Amino acid sequence: MSTQAQSQIKYFWEDLPVGKTLDIGSITVDHDEVIAFATKYDPQPFHLNEEAAAKSMFGKLSASGWHTCAMAMGLMVRGFLHESSSLGSPGLEAVKWLKPVYPGDTLTLKQRIVEARPMKSRPDVGLTRTLWEMFNQHGDQVLMMDGYGMFRRRTPAGSDEPKASE
Amino acid sequence: MSTQAQSQIKYFWEDLPVGKTLDIGSITVDHDEVIAFATKYDPQPFHLNEEAAAKSMFGKLSASGWHTCAMAMGLMVRGFLHESSSLGSPGLEAVKWLKPVYPGDTLTLKQRIVEARPMKSRPDVGLTRTLWEMFNQHGDQVLMMDGYGMFRRRTPAGSDEPKASE
Repeated sequence: MSTQAQSQIKYFWEDLPVGKTLDIGSITVDHDEVIAFATKYDPQPFHLNEEAAAKSMFGKLSASGWHTCAMAMGLMVRGFLHESSSLGSPGLEAVKWLKPVYPGDTLTLKQRIVEARPMKSRPDVGLTRTLWEMFNQHGDQVLMMDGYGMFRRRTPAGSDEPKASE
Repeated sequence: MSTQAQSQIKYFWEDLPVGKTLDIGSITVDHDEVIAFATKYDPQPFHLNEEAAAKSMFGKLSASGWHTCAMAMGLMVRGFLHESSSLGSPGLEAVKWLKPVYPGDTLTLKQRIVEARPMKSRPDVGLTRTLWEMFNQHGDQVLMMDGYGMFRRRTPAGSDEPKASE
């Protein structure tokens, strides 16, 4: 990453302490995209057509749970990670699909930092554990994810420099 | 689900005991699809173009972790769930992105049942916990998922009928 890009970073690891909450953004679920995603990645009948969905436990056409996760990730990148020193994620501790997601729903994502610690193996990187919660327009929570992210530190551990970018 | 469809089901809950393993299938990762998925759902530079990827920790263009999950789900539906009495999943206990996934990689998915129990609230449904492991063509594991699925039972708990479909 260039020095210029580095100077535009709003969230280094130090800026993500335990308890910090952020409203990440909203997205309205597109009917055709629900079908396009499912056709490629989750072709179960209740994600593909209204008739099969009407006979299923969902009652009507619903988005693949993986599509819901992907929409949450899209919000997260555009509304947070692009402004951060993120170095990716090793994984998640939990994913819960709490309610069906339907075309036309408007989903809103929030995140809260629940754990933050330095990485022993890399003095320039810290680990955060984040709880993501996504709600529909009725206020019902549809998705919970609990996972880890790695972020570059503004000030590497043991450094005398006030900023890594200086 | 119609009686005819029911008679075509190969895997009811009873057919998925602890320890059962299944080879689910393989997929080769398409370069353009990596970029298309990332453009929509995970527009981080190292998933979008070779130049940015070369400067990242991945070294070259890699698939979004969510794309890897979605490809695994596609294999799972086509290679297993379509022949099962699946009623969906409430969520996962873990997702681990263990190695980068690159365009051209051939990924192979296996699953192993690690837990199976009746659902108290629904005598016609059982719960399974499954470990999914996906490997690349070098034998390196790239993805681990550990999660729950609900499956209709062939014989509901407390039923005198030998088969629910009879």
